[in-house]
Amino acid sequence: MKKEIKIGLLGCGTVGSGVYKILEQNAESIANKSGAKLVVKKVLVKDKNEPLAVDVDKNLLTENFEDVINDDEIEIIIEVIGGVNPAKDFVLRSLESGRSVISANKELIAKHGEEILATADENSVDFYFEASVGGGIPIISPLKESLAGNKITKVMGIVNGTTNYILTKMDQEGAEFDQVLKKAQELGYAEADPTSDIEGYDAAYKLAILASIAFESRVNIEDVYMEGITKITKEDITYAKELGYKIKLLAIGKQNDGVELRVHPTLLPQEHPIAKVDDVFNAIFIEGDAIGEAMFYGPGAGQMPTGSAIVGDVIAAARNINFGAQGRIACTCFTQKEIKDRSEVESSFYIRLEVLDRPGVLGEVTSLLGKQSVSLESVIQHGRSNSTVPLVLVTHEVKEGNLNAALEKIKALDDVKEIASLIRVEDYN
Amino acid sequence: MKKEIKIGLLGCGTVGSGVYKILEQNAESIANKSGAKLVVKKVLVKDKNEPLAVDVDKNLLTENFEDVINDDEIEIIIEVIGGVNPAKDFVLRSLESGRSVISANKELIAKHGEEILATADENSVDFYFEASVGGGIPIISPLKESLAGNKITKVMGIVNGTTNYILTKMDQEGAEFDQVLKKAQELGYAEADPTSDIEGYDAAYKLAILASIAFESRVNIEDVYMEGITKITKEDITYAKELGYKIKLLAIGKQNDGVELRVHPTLLPQEHPIAKVDDVFNAIFIEGDAIGEAMFYGPGAGQMPTGSAIVGDVIAAARNINFGAQGRIACTCFTQKEIKDRSEVESSFYIRLEVLDRPGVLGEVTSLLGKQSVSLESVIQHGRSNSTVPLVLVTHEVKEGNLNAALEKIKALDDVKEIASLIRVEDYN
Repeated sequence: MKKEIKIGLLGCGTVGSGVYKILEQNAESIANKSGAKLVVKKVLVKDKNEPLAVDVDKNLLTENFEDVINDDEIEIIIEVIGGVNPAKDFVLRSLESGRSVISANKELIAKHGEEILATADENSVDFYFEASVGGGIPIISPLKESLAGNKITKVMGIVNGTTNYILTKMDQEGAEFDQVLKKAQELGYAEADPTSDIEGYDAAYKLAILASIAFESRVNIEDVYMEGITKITKEDITYAKELGYKIKLLAIGKQNDGVELRVHPTLLPQEHPIAKVDDVFNAIFIEGDAIGEAMFYGPGAGQMPTGSAIVGDVIAAARNINFGAQGRIACTCFTQKEIKDRSEVESSFYIRLEVLDRPGVLGEVTSLLGKQSVSLESVIQHGRSNSTVPLVLVTHEVKEGNLNAALEKIKALDDVKEIASLIRVEDYN
Repeated sequence: MKKEIKIGLLGCGTVGSGVYKILEQNAESIANKSGAKLVVKKVLVKDKNEPLAVDVDKNLLTENFEDVINDDEIEIIIEVIGGVNPAKDFVLRSLESGRSVISANKELIAKHGEEILATADENSVDFYFEASVGGGIPIISPLKESLAGNKITKVMGIVNGTTNYILTKMDQEGAEFDQVLKKAQELGYAEADPTSDIEGYDAAYKLAILASIAFESRVNIEDVYMEGITKITKEDITYAKELGYKIKLLAIGKQNDGVELRVHPTLLPQEHPIAKVDDVFNAIFIEGDAIGEAMFYGPGAGQMPTGSAIVGDVIAAARNINFGAQGRIACTCFTQKEIKDRSEVESSFYIRLEVLDRPGVLGEVTSLLGKQSVSLESVIQHGRSNSTVPLVLVTHEVKEGNLNAALEKIKALDDVKEIASLIRVEDYN
């Protein structure tokens, strides 16, 4: 057994400094578990003169990746730079040189996970990435280990804290999207350019990673259908509540007669465990043929929670080094499963139409839906007015292709002024 | 790498047959992950002629443990007999003979975990026991791995499905304990002799296991303060609701200036993630210095969920055999921490007194509490009556010693007829 295992830390921003802090403050317990003292030997930063969020010995700092990779004592490299370049190059070169690598980089893994995991495999080293999904929440390791006996049929999560915060506040305060987004930006819960969060890219990266592991089949990011939350109105949230639902941005992966992958706002029954997860918290819900259902809940981002997940992976990699068991848990995409065509995907839908308040509108609409075998679970029609009124419908499960065909015809009706909202509904069996 | 790894299964009741089923139905995926085909070679049963809940080749069955331990091909032994004897002897002999052992036996591990883990260590083999707490929910592995970078300060769980079912139904149906227990027995959610569940023994075993791992310090079952749910009335549940709480049987471990360990009915704020966990479901909530808070939710018992946890452990043990890494994750009780004296433990309390409806009673009671530095957060006093009326108090945090001293004096007051209920309150910060 080695007495010390040396670490190279690539990046020392928010997450990197969290990792450094945890390794310092819990050093003794971490050494006990790892079987070796874990020592950060080099820290790659952009500018050595920039102040850091954590107190790091200046002698460890370098601006040159070559200083890290050429340090033969370093056995584990942590990548917390983010983005694809230069992170991808650094990760691949680290693996090729025989280092185990830990990364929190969801975009890199969603886009290049296959190449990276193959490289780790060829070099008999570990590539771990628990922090890439759900921040501090253990989910990748449970899927690859404790739940490994299951055939996972569903993985569904709130995996983006920013959008969950926005939807929670819209719900609690009856506020509109733009208003809450602005407040979230002021509080630092949303970035100045919030596109990646509110349009669903961030959640889509995480779903690609989760589903690849859950279904043991490589998911490309292009396979994920994606819809953001920018069109959600307080009106929809109010109707959803009246119908017994909450609206959440969900990442949904299902395995039935094919694999379905989608990120979109969703009406979720209020009694579903995930519907109760509010604010910036994340949660991942899974269904497996042995366990039934399970949920993992916690903070989906932040310096220390993300650091927690990375340090957990570092300890696993250190254990493997000390036992000569590197590569013990490798890529689990054993087969390539078919991605279902979107028109074949089945879901229930919430539809809000703006219609002229004339007798017979509801009849016309339901008749056009019926011709495409779309039946209704609920209808809400409130108020009387000279102008348009909302007509809210919730369908039973229907193939998207059938619904879209019906909606084309409904849109053409004289009395229908607008299909104002179309949001998927996820049932809780 | 071995092509096959042979397994001996000790016990083929509910859980054992679940394990067998999962190993059969997901054999290919499990082999992919383990790096070897997992084959059950011997199944120990009490009576070979008794029918089993799963279709097992008769040739695998034996009534004699010696047939299992003398089969040199067997490398992993699964113990799902339950109870201390003969399970302890079988587990120790299996480990001593160089087999990795998986067990779901909470009583055995809570009482003899130290000896068993030391034996595994001496023989450089694995002893895994994910299924012993929370059924299918991954919690032991996350605590030892993904969350290993944290100092865990709190572990709190609903770890007994029977009592959670009873309390949920009492809450939802306004029914009394005896009535719901009877129904639970009819439905098979409670045993004919329900003592172990309703008096808290089952939860105490699980807490001893959880806290040993979370706090890295051996917990003896005698260190766990234990109180069951038999005295909870529908009246208390109603008052709790009025005050914004739910009553749950919680297993609570805290690490502050000492270690606290207790199993008791608890008033939990309705917005706490654990308060929303109903019916037979379990959930374990943790607090750590890096992750903040996290929760793990799922089915706490049952053939397939418990089988799921066991098979996850079997796969881990198989991976270790194939990588020559047995003993990779051993006992994590690195230090022995002090258990706090009960009189020093701080908690808030819900107190229901039956008092004579006379002016001045509330004043007398609060004055006696005040002398012991017990201050109040809420008071409920309803109704007027010629006989006794309930006086419900919720205190701020107080040392149990101080509260007990005040209650001794309150009990002696002429106007106080009874201290009808005394239930701890757990805040959500």
